[in-house]
Amino acid sequence: MIRVLLAEDQHVIRGALAALLGLEPDLEIVAAVDSGDAALSAALVHRPDVAVLDIDMPGARDGLAAAAELRERLPGCRTLMLTAHGKPGHLRRALGAQVDGFLLKTAPPEDLVAGIRAVAAGQRVLDPSLAVTAWNLADNPLTPREADVLRLAASGADAAEIAARLFLGAGTVRNYLTAIVAKLNARNRTDAVRIASEAGWI
Amino acid sequence: MIRVLLAEDQHVIRGALAALLGLEPDLEIVAAVDSGDAALSAALVHRPDVAVLDIDMPGARDGLAAAAELRERLPGCRTLMLTAHGKPGHLRRALGAQVDGFLLKTAPPEDLVAGIRAVAAGQRVLDPSLAVTAWNLADNPLTPREADVLRLAASGADAAEIAARLFLGAGTVRNYLTAIVAKLNARNRTDAVRIASEAGWI
Repeated sequence: MIRVLLAEDQHVIRGALAALLGLEPDLEIVAAVDSGDAALSAALVHRPDVAVLDIDMPGARDGLAAAAELRERLPGCRTLMLTAHGKPGHLRRALGAQVDGFLLKTAPPEDLVAGIRAVAAGQRVLDPSLAVTAWNLADNPLTPREADVLRLAASGADAAEIAARLFLGAGTVRNYLTAIVAKLNARNRTDAVRIASEAGWI
Repeated sequence: MIRVLLAEDQHVIRGALAALLGLEPDLEIVAAVDSGDAALSAALVHRPDVAVLDIDMPGARDGLAAAAELRERLPGCRTLMLTAHGKPGHLRRALGAQVDGFLLKTAPPEDLVAGIRAVAAGQRVLDPSLAVTAWNLADNPLTPREADVLRLAASGADAAEIAARLFLGAGTVRNYLTAIVAKLNARNRTDAVRIASEAGWI
């Protein structure tokens, strides 16, 4: 029996998913909650084998934040994100949170059921429609620090502000930005931000 | 009109692919060759918009080596790998060669035609069945240098041999190996080699 926790803020969808999964003889819904905070609390009580988490949920923790914390506090629990969007940024955060699966709500119901069984068995699952997005992420030429610098530049910070935020010298930040523009074959910083955003690297 | 070069060493398959692509009013086969070497020579003469390359071909250059060299010498030519295998190592090399597309021969013919049109339009294409492989690659925690060290360790080289090959000190190599084992949560070097090989990181 695979013990499943379900976190989805939209009540109708949560009910429908619980009903769907309840039809499977090898799945048991041990909790169905409406936020990332509630998912974490419920998981620590019910110790599910798999947590199926929507990303966009209200509260202090969205689904990905809940998944990252579950990873730390309940390592035996596998996490499967079920989301409406295949945004590159979400997929990048999902990688960082080391989730086990990532499926879109457009997937057929049998894929969700198969995905739960697969992550419970220790496999990874990724929606096939996100193949190119994952491929772009794998091609990320930026180091984590370069990505930090460019993300701050994207938010409108200048070199001095980025330096202050990252406890670096302003000259160091300018060197990073020059290196980033060269790495991305970009025309300038703005172009580098566009390229990296579209690819999901920042 | 999209000008297509086709490189596939198996004659029957090459003929079948040429016939299939020839049915499309917007595709023109400008060359059909049987090796990576021939693909490169023919591309420099015929300047195709898209080179469709099998990976496993005889000669000095396999399909991926030809793609990497085409990228340098004929930047306007898009490359689409068409291969029987979705091996993680092939996908990793394809990333390194900066190919534009990667499809399996198990894909339906209309996917190949659509893939050629997509890469010609500047998009990337990845076989949906390789989504998880790409996702694993994107999660690669090793730096290129760490991957070099581990690849040599996987081939049976000890620290002294790896040091000689990479022009490093033996102590530096041992430090790399310790860091790699920690990064991969591996039990030892052998376990690190297994984890990294299965994920396609080396």
